[in-house]
Amino acid sequence: MLLIKRFCGGFQRINAITKGSKPGERLSVQGWIQNIRRLKKNIFFDLNDGSTMRKFQVVIPKNSDTKDIGVGSNISATGCVQTAPNGQLELHAEHVEVIADGNITEGYPFSPKQQHSPEYVREHLHLRSRVDYIAAQLRLRHRAMKAIHDYMDKLDFIQINTPVLTTNDCEGAGEVFRVQPDSADLLKEMTRPSIPIEQSYFDNKVFLSVSGQFHLEAMTYGLGNTYTLNPAFRAENCKSPIHLSEFYMYEAEIAFITNISSLTEFIEKMIKAITSRIIESSLDDLKFCQEKALGSAFDIPWLESPWITLSYDEACDIILANKEKFKTELKPAEGFSKEQELYMVEYCQAPVFVVEWPANQKPFYMKAVRSNPERVHALDLLMPGVGELCGGSLRENDEERLRALPHLPQGLEWYLELRKYGGTPTGGFGMGFERYLQLITGVKNIRDVIPFPRYPHSCKL
Amino acid sequence: MLLIKRFCGGFQRINAITKGSKPGERLSVQGWIQNIRRLKKNIFFDLNDGSTMRKFQVVIPKNSDTKDIGVGSNISATGCVQTAPNGQLELHAEHVEVIADGNITEGYPFSPKQQHSPEYVREHLHLRSRVDYIAAQLRLRHRAMKAIHDYMDKLDFIQINTPVLTTNDCEGAGEVFRVQPDSADLLKEMTRPSIPIEQSYFDNKVFLSVSGQFHLEAMTYGLGNTYTLNPAFRAENCKSPIHLSEFYMYEAEIAFITNISSLTEFIEKMIKAITSRIIESSLDDLKFCQEKALGSAFDIPWLESPWITLSYDEACDIILANKEKFKTELKPAEGFSKEQELYMVEYCQAPVFVVEWPANQKPFYMKAVRSNPERVHALDLLMPGVGELCGGSLRENDEERLRALPHLPQGLEWYLELRKYGGTPTGGFGMGFERYLQLITGVKNIRDVIPFPRYPHSCKL
Repeated sequence: MLLIKRFCGGFQRINAITKGSKPGERLSVQGWIQNIRRLKKNIFFDLNDGSTMRKFQVVIPKNSDTKDIGVGSNISATGCVQTAPNGQLELHAEHVEVIADGNITEGYPFSPKQQHSPEYVREHLHLRSRVDYIAAQLRLRHRAMKAIHDYMDKLDFIQINTPVLTTNDCEGAGEVFRVQPDSADLLKEMTRPSIPIEQSYFDNKVFLSVSGQFHLEAMTYGLGNTYTLNPAFRAENCKSPIHLSEFYMYEAEIAFITNISSLTEFIEKMIKAITSRIIESSLDDLKFCQEKALGSAFDIPWLESPWITLSYDEACDIILANKEKFKTELKPAEGFSKEQELYMVEYCQAPVFVVEWPANQKPFYMKAVRSNPERVHALDLLMPGVGELCGGSLRENDEERLRALPHLPQGLEWYLELRKYGGTPTGGFGMGFERYLQLITGVKNIRDVIPFPRYPHSCKL
Repeated sequence: MLLIKRFCGGFQRINAITKGSKPGERLSVQGWIQNIRRLKKNIFFDLNDGSTMRKFQVVIPKNSDTKDIGVGSNISATGCVQTAPNGQLELHAEHVEVIADGNITEGYPFSPKQQHSPEYVREHLHLRSRVDYIAAQLRLRHRAMKAIHDYMDKLDFIQINTPVLTTNDCEGAGEVFRVQPDSADLLKEMTRPSIPIEQSYFDNKVFLSVSGQFHLEAMTYGLGNTYTLNPAFRAENCKSPIHLSEFYMYEAEIAFITNISSLTEFIEKMIKAITSRIIESSLDDLKFCQEKALGSAFDIPWLESPWITLSYDEACDIILANKEKFKTELKPAEGFSKEQELYMVEYCQAPVFVVEWPANQKPFYMKAVRSNPERVHALDLLMPGVGELCGGSLRENDEERLRALPHLPQGLEWYLELRKYGGTPTGGFGMGFERYLQLITGVKNIRDVIPFPRYPHSCKL
C-alpha cells in the first residue's frame, strides 16, 4: 500500500473513492472534466479518470482558479468527500488546478450530451477510449484476461507465448497472412541460393499464426499442462459482427487426459469460475456494457446450473425432429448451422457440449474412438447468443495412426516426432477470447470488445 | 482446492510433492521416465512431469508391470512417499501403469546422460521443452509474466492488447515486416479502385508492430494508466545473441506524470518487486538456469541497494575521464556504446538511469525540457551484464510544439489529436521482456529464453 500511495503521488482514483471513501475524508483526485454546470456561487463538474463508469461530481466555489476550466480540461482537485443529495459521494474542493486545457469544443467528435452509434464511435478509434462504454469494455477485457491468468496459474498451467510468425499454415485452409520484410534491399542482402527472394529473410514462406495448438502440444510434452492467450489471424473477406482479422485465442493443452468428459468438465468449471470472478470484480462495468448493448442488464443464466453433453447423433436427432423450425436443412457433412446451434441451446435450456463427432468433419489431429474409428473424441461448446464458443478434442497420440491418415498435411514430421518420442495422451481446447467477451456483455459487434479492431478494408492507426 | 484435486484426477505434481509431502503419505504421480536403473529386486527411475527441475525417484519391485518400462515411457505410479538415504523424498510404488511407450532409444536427439550445447538443443526446437534447463527457463518466463500482470493489476493499470497489425511504421526506421493475405485470389476479389492490389485487404500497407507505445497513449487518454506485454517485431539482419525478429515488449503509459524522476522511481520499484516475486516463487528454477548459463548460481546484487541517476552530461564526463579504457571513442551524436554502458554500471556499482538526453538523439515524441528545449525528458536504464534494459520518457503533450517539429513523421494526425483534445501529461517506458529474462538468469543467447525463437534464416515450426 505504501508503494501504491507513493506511486500515485497522493492522488486517489475515482473507482477507489466511490467504493471505499467515507464522508469527511480529505483527498485529491486527477481527471478529465466530462460535463460542467456553472451556478451562481458554485461550479459543478463530472470528473472522469478512466477508472470507473460511475460519475463523480466535484463542487467548487467560483473563483480565479476556476475561470479557465471547461469540458475536457485536465484538472487536479483537493477537498473533502461529502454525501450529495442523491446519496452519491461527491468532492467539495477548495482547490482546483488545471493541468492541461482540453479544448474539446473545436471539432471533438463526441459531444458529452449526445449518444453516438457504435459505428460512429468506431470511426474515431484513437479517441474512442474516452467514451464511457468503450472504457468499460476495455476494463472488463483486462479483468477477463487477469481472471484467466489467475485461474490457470492456480492450476499449475504454464503460459506459453506461442509464436505469431510460423511456417505452419495449420490446417492449410489458405486463409492466412504472409509476412516478409518491407525492405527490398534487405531481402536482396539476405538472398541465398535456391530460396525465392521474397522468402530470403527466414528461408521460408512465413505466415501469421491461426492457432497456437501445435506449438502448445510440443511444450506440453515437456512441461505438462500449458496454455496461451495470444493473437491469431485470419485473412478472410468476412465482415460479420463475430469475425476479426486479428483476434485473441485462449488455448490450453492438458497432459495425461484420456476422456473427453474430463475436458468438458474442465471447460465448464473454468468458464464458470472466470465469469464469476469477473462478476465479483467488475459488476458495475459488466452491467453497464450489457445495458449499452441490449438496452438492459441481464443475469447470466448458465453460471449455477449444470451444462448438457450430447453426442453428435443425439444432437442430429434433435435437429431432425424439429426440422420445420429451420431455414436450412441439416447437412451432415457440414455440421450445424448457427441457427441450429442456437436452437440446441434453447432446446436444452443450458450450454451444450456436442461430442463424438464424425472424423470427416474434424481436423486430422483428433483422436479416433478406438471402438469406432469413424468417430473422433471432439467437442464443440455451444452457448446462448453466440453459438460455438469453444472447440476441443483429445489429440491422436499414436504416431502410426497419424502416419496412416490419407489427408495428413505436409511438413508436420516434427508433429509426428512428438508422438514417436513420448506419446503422452493430451487434449485441449481453443476459445475465441473476443467471442467470450461478446457472450458475457451481449455486445453485438466484436469490433467493440477489442481495443484496435482489424477487419477487411480497415486497419486504423 | 477441491477443483484442483478433481481436475488432476487424484494425481499430484512432483513440484508439489517435493515441497509439501510428508514421509508416509500415499499418492499417485504421472510423468515421463528420464533415467532408469534395474537392480536385483527393484527398479529405480527418475520421473519428470515438467513441474520442477528436481529429480524425483520412484522405486518399484521388479514384476510383470515393470518389464515394458524404459527411458521415455509415460507412466503413472501409486505408492507411499519415503525419505531416501540422500535425504530427498522418493516414492515407493506398489503399482506402475505404462500410459504410453516413449521409445526414445531410436533417434531421440537428447541422450539423458549427456550434456548438449544450446546450439544443438535449439536444432530440435519441437523436443526442446523436454530438456531440463529449457523447461526451467519456460517456467521462469511464465512466472515473470505472472509477476508483471499481478504487479500492474494491483496498481490499477489496465492491460491493453496493442495491435500486432498496424499501418504505423512507428519511427520510420524501415526495419519492419509487411503483411498481406497469402491468397492472390483473395487480393483480387478485394481490389478497390486506386488501391495497389497487394494492399487490397486493408486498403493500406500494413506492418507488424515494432512498439505499442502510441496505441497505449491513445488508451491512456481515456483509461488512465495502461500497459501491454505483447509481441513486437524487427526485420533486421542481425544475428546477435540479444536480438530476435519476434520478441515481447513490456510497455507502460502513466497518466498525469510530470517528472522524469517519478518514472525512474516507478521503474526501479517495479523491477525490484517483480524480481523479488520471481525469487520467492521460483528460486530453484532461477538458480538452475543461472548455473547452466554461467557455471554457478549468483545473487542479484541490485535488489536492495538504491539505483543511480546520472544526467547525460554527467555520464559523458565519466566516459571522457576514463576514455583510455574503451575501444571506441564517445560519439556524442550516437549515445553510448554497449562497452561504455557496462562501464557506467561498473563505475557506479549499481544500475544507472541516464536522463536529460540531447533531443537530437531521441525520437520526436519526447517532451522538451522547457528551460532548455535542446534537451528532452528521456531515460535509458543501464543494467549489469545486459546494458540498456529500458527506455522511457515523458511524452510531449503540447500539440503546437509537436506540429512545429521539423522531423515530425507523416500520418500521425491522430497522434496530434490526442493532445488537441486533452493534452494529459503522460510518460512511460518500454522493456524488452526477453532481455529482462537474460538479465536475471545470465543466459547468453536470447534464443533460449523464448519458446519459439525467430531470427534471420530461422522460423522453425
